[in-house]
Amino acid sequence: MPCPQRTRIDDPQDPRLDDVRDLKHSDSRGGLVYAEGPLICGRMVHSRFPLSCVVGFGGRLDSFLATFGADLGDVPVYEVTRPVLAEVAGYDMHRGLIAVASRPAPLTVAEVLDGARSLVILEGVGDHENIGAIFRNAAGMGIDGVLFGAGTADPLYRRSVRVSMGHALRTPFAHVEGTVTTWQRGLEELRVAGWRLVSLTPAEEASHLADALVDAAGRPYDKVAFLVGGEGPGLTEHAMRATDIRARIPMAPGTDSLNVATSAAIAFYERQRSLR
Amino acid sequence: MPCPQRTRIDDPQDPRLDDVRDLKHSDSRGGLVYAEGPLICGRMVHSRFPLSCVVGFGGRLDSFLATFGADLGDVPVYEVTRPVLAEVAGYDMHRGLIAVASRPAPLTVAEVLDGARSLVILEGVGDHENIGAIFRNAAGMGIDGVLFGAGTADPLYRRSVRVSMGHALRTPFAHVEGTVTTWQRGLEELRVAGWRLVSLTPAEEASHLADALVDAAGRPYDKVAFLVGGEGPGLTEHAMRATDIRARIPMAPGTDSLNVATSAAIAFYERQRSLR
Repeated sequence: MPCPQRTRIDDPQDPRLDDVRDLKHSDSRGGLVYAEGPLICGRMVHSRFPLSCVVGFGGRLDSFLATFGADLGDVPVYEVTRPVLAEVAGYDMHRGLIAVASRPAPLTVAEVLDGARSLVILEGVGDHENIGAIFRNAAGMGIDGVLFGAGTADPLYRRSVRVSMGHALRTPFAHVEGTVTTWQRGLEELRVAGWRLVSLTPAEEASHLADALVDAAGRPYDKVAFLVGGEGPGLTEHAMRATDIRARIPMAPGTDSLNVATSAAIAFYERQRSLR
Repeated sequence: MPCPQRTRIDDPQDPRLDDVRDLKHSDSRGGLVYAEGPLICGRMVHSRFPLSCVVGFGGRLDSFLATFGADLGDVPVYEVTRPVLAEVAGYDMHRGLIAVASRPAPLTVAEVLDGARSLVILEGVGDHENIGAIFRNAAGMGIDGVLFGAGTADPLYRRSVRVSMGHALRTPFAHVEGTVTTWQRGLEELRVAGWRLVSLTPAEEASHLADALVDAAGRPYDKVAFLVGGEGPGLTEHAMRATDIRARIPMAPGTDSLNVATSAAIAFYERQRSLR
């Protein structure tokens, strides 16, 4: 299919490439969001993020446009060589394809909750790689949305988007309003709305994860939201007190708690398992 | 407690520091194994790896020796300043404590199996970080040992040991003998010895993981070994054919398979769950 908006650019100084300039040192400059590589660029096209341009090597653009060209509308597509892109971006980008989008208005908590049955709520997860991995695992195991409490990293940073395999662009998320010590009040509204709130904690006295997701008759709760805390400190006591139950993944003696994204993956698996 | 083997070294050229020289560019030089930071150094002390020296800042050594000094025997302990260690190692090592060990004779498969009830067997897992994460997750959730088929990375590289939180030094592991296409014959011996061999695969037609670990009456198998394949290609068909069952973690439509260490963590969790 012909692509009228495709333009070849050979001058690294061309201002039309400014959105991908010096990318090495800018993770989310000007509120822009970046998708790198064909898989994640494709997911960005089919997301709520409005594309501003696509930049790539000739061969990568050929196959990308063959699949997504019709969905691009009038978004400009810039063909560059590998050396030109390396000079503009500041490093050798072997994936050869970048899509750039701006940030739409944030979703509201109500929008994330709409139709959802399984959620994860993050508090103090400050590592972009862990945030990305949580989105990847959530999407893979049927979690419908992500809510952010205080102290969480930006899921739209390049590293988060990359590790999420693009699911940070697809899975709905919103920030719960409030300060570091007041955002947890929003949890009460979730409980009123019928959500079972489950804190994940390594504490010995917590219930086994499997028991926390079903009622006394063994039936799964209709709506479950997992609370996951930051690397190191875990959830605040304040947040855990606002939940229905504290749940643990049993750990062998003399070992450490699991990585936060791994713990979350196990919780998502158990939720999915409880519903089968 | 006095520590007769503790010596302060201020000359970065001192040959007694050669084991930690230019560490930045050497991951397992001369077959040496490195533990970095107090937690992992402590785990190395209580492992089968024979220490050759401990190097650290004064304060770090004080607290380390207070806990482990009595277990060190005549292993030399070298106190250095942060600038000296940075010059020797080639980078600023903020953890301030390194223990160095040599590699003992490898364990045999029989030694790893002895007394074990839960195992993981790796094929083609070539990423040091994933190998380390698998050891961390295995130790955390009661897996007794790790067997290596073909194409797996070295679990004793610095990065693997670090990501494993030191459990690569503690959890027994051995290599199954054979070539890339013959190592799987060793799996037959495991089956004869009563092991339930479970391949992890994203294939739609595989059984649900939870069903693969219990017999028709819902009783857990006595001895279970999970087979986990490399990033990307997964297990070879050759390996999967040698197992009792193919098991999958159900994935949402339009998503990718999980990271290999995350999949393994979920399998370990399910194994532990089946035994409670």
